[in-house]
Amino acid sequence: MAAKDESKGTLKEFGLKIVEQIKKGKNPEISFPLRNLSNIIYDEKSRTLKLGNKKGSRSFFNVAHSKKFLQTVEVASVIKEKLIDSGKHSSLRDVFYMVKRTIPGTSTNLVDEQTESDKAIEDLEVITTLSREQMHVNANKNGSVAGKVVIEDRGDTIDWSKLGSGGWAIPSNVEDIKFKKVDAKYIIYMEKAAVWERLNEDKYWQKNEAIIVSSQGQTTRGIRRLLQRLYDEYKLPIYVLCDGDIYGAYIYSVIKYGSIALAHASERLTIPGVKYVGITMDDVEKYDLKKHFIKLDEKDYARIKQVSEYDWFKNNKEWQRQFKMMKDFKSKVEIQSLSSKDISFVSEVYLPNKIKNREFLD
Amino acid sequence: MAAKDESKGTLKEFGLKIVEQIKKGKNPEISFPLRNLSNIIYDEKSRTLKLGNKKGSRSFFNVAHSKKFLQTVEVASVIKEKLIDSGKHSSLRDVFYMVKRTIPGTSTNLVDEQTESDKAIEDLEVITTLSREQMHVNANKNGSVAGKVVIEDRGDTIDWSKLGSGGWAIPSNVEDIKFKKVDAKYIIYMEKAAVWERLNEDKYWQKNEAIIVSSQGQTTRGIRRLLQRLYDEYKLPIYVLCDGDIYGAYIYSVIKYGSIALAHASERLTIPGVKYVGITMDDVEKYDLKKHFIKLDEKDYARIKQVSEYDWFKNNKEWQRQFKMMKDFKSKVEIQSLSSKDISFVSEVYLPNKIKNREFLD
Repeated sequence: MAAKDESKGTLKEFGLKIVEQIKKGKNPEISFPLRNLSNIIYDEKSRTLKLGNKKGSRSFFNVAHSKKFLQTVEVASVIKEKLIDSGKHSSLRDVFYMVKRTIPGTSTNLVDEQTESDKAIEDLEVITTLSREQMHVNANKNGSVAGKVVIEDRGDTIDWSKLGSGGWAIPSNVEDIKFKKVDAKYIIYMEKAAVWERLNEDKYWQKNEAIIVSSQGQTTRGIRRLLQRLYDEYKLPIYVLCDGDIYGAYIYSVIKYGSIALAHASERLTIPGVKYVGITMDDVEKYDLKKHFIKLDEKDYARIKQVSEYDWFKNNKEWQRQFKMMKDFKSKVEIQSLSSKDISFVSEVYLPNKIKNREFLD
Repeated sequence: MAAKDESKGTLKEFGLKIVEQIKKGKNPEISFPLRNLSNIIYDEKSRTLKLGNKKGSRSFFNVAHSKKFLQTVEVASVIKEKLIDSGKHSSLRDVFYMVKRTIPGTSTNLVDEQTESDKAIEDLEVITTLSREQMHVNANKNGSVAGKVVIEDRGDTIDWSKLGSGGWAIPSNVEDIKFKKVDAKYIIYMEKAAVWERLNEDKYWQKNEAIIVSSQGQTTRGIRRLLQRLYDEYKLPIYVLCDGDIYGAYIYSVIKYGSIALAHASERLTIPGVKYVGITMDDVEKYDLKKHFIKLDEKDYARIKQVSEYDWFKNNKEWQRQFKMMKDFKSKVEIQSLSSKDISFVSEVYLPNKIKNREFLD
């Protein structure tokens, strides 16, 4: 497999460079783009969060660096030998345990906390430009998908339109799945599994030639990569359906622009073309949802202030208007408040209308 | 469908009884087993949490009862007409929005908080002996499953052994799925999706003729019902794999004995025959896991005290020994610490050995 060979080759090269420096009697050194806040920029052109040009380095014979240097090298070694060479995948937590041991001849642990091995993996991502997924380190597993799509995965042919009420469980790593047939006009991603179950029971994906994807809680890297691959490889528009509140706006923005924590992985995770289908503050008027308002609390107001000042929102007039309406209404509203009109209102009226009329926020 | 007719018939009967009382000029009244703590008992014989014999009643012409009476009747009506009659399913949150409206001629809402409609649904469960699922009110959706099992669900034939790295996403409601072929000797249920991905990648289910089931976080009612159905209908042993800590013990006990909140649904949700495969405090010695100990904090100690005093644990010598060891070790240990030995240690050594030697806690 080409992908595996690429990851293997890149990590081998990383190791060989260090060996070379040692053979030359040099102080072994690794350099990489800095990942601290001062080097995270919002790129107006690509509309994503990115790393700037500031570089850092880490050398072995430097008391302040040596442990981190060792951690990076050991994590790279574990990833190459125990994961990529064997064709196996594992979680961040597993990598932590695989790396955790006493440095020979000392009573010092190579890593004491998972944050240390996590950081080493992030460093390797920026050093090698391989993604975590390419290095076989999986993120959380979460979410389901349905639609007229046939994929191939680990030798199985899987038809997303024939999986009953459950759908296909999205794995944590979708790098190796192959799309064999994609028969859809767009994708709806929703933050709530209960809404996904509504759309699935109503066969929304069949009636509207759509793919429906949901998480339960956070949008995992697996889900984001799945959306991105369908967007890139099949040019499918993606519409995000969230509660009408600041958290929904943020979930949307992470898919679209990336997040501060993962700015170094923006290219592989962000989808600049996604659009927000709802719930908007305008929907509140249009669909008479005021009676289902939930009062904002202090935390909500603070979050509105914070999110509205993010670089990717601060010059966006449409979104600023939404944030202002949230504050004027002093309220938020849930997707499921649409159920008050009719149990299938969301799948039979709300979504088809909004998509037909192209009522999106960008 | 027989199940649908049964639910429909039972709810209709519930309504007819009230109509009858009204026609006779009586004060309409509903009676049901009480669900407060004083009426929740641990039944030593069936080894489940159950409701006792105390009964309560609710009548319309009683200022303290009338709103709750109305809520119960309205929820029953919504469930019958909007869900069962239409063959649709929904979440607790949706039912809340479907029920939420102003009582005609007043400015009072029928329900203001979801807890009110939730309680009405629980009341209907004990009044009618129908489960929430039979009334088409779904719980959370969560979890994945793989194994040599073929099911039929909503007209689709789904083979759990042909779903690649993702597996089948377990729906929130598994009442209507039909098992067509079940080729397995036992089930492993694990609390962590990352461990499930390890077992799935290693084809544990194929090599060991097992079914592997996981959640990510809580064991939903959908997962519990799926386990129970396989246990009841195919007499499959179920082994629970959790972290070696008090929370793991509790997760296990909920599957086995039920929970206080759902004592009224014990019959439909508990599985007295499940066994705990690990991680145990004895594993710590046997597999040399002490170096991966995580120190207990105050919250852990308080929870050990609380859980060890539960009726279903307090006379269980083996578990009391475990709780004591937790306190003596002052530590807990995670499933994934086994990865320190080898990435596939859990699937190739740990689980096969424990199951072969029948090293379980009951």
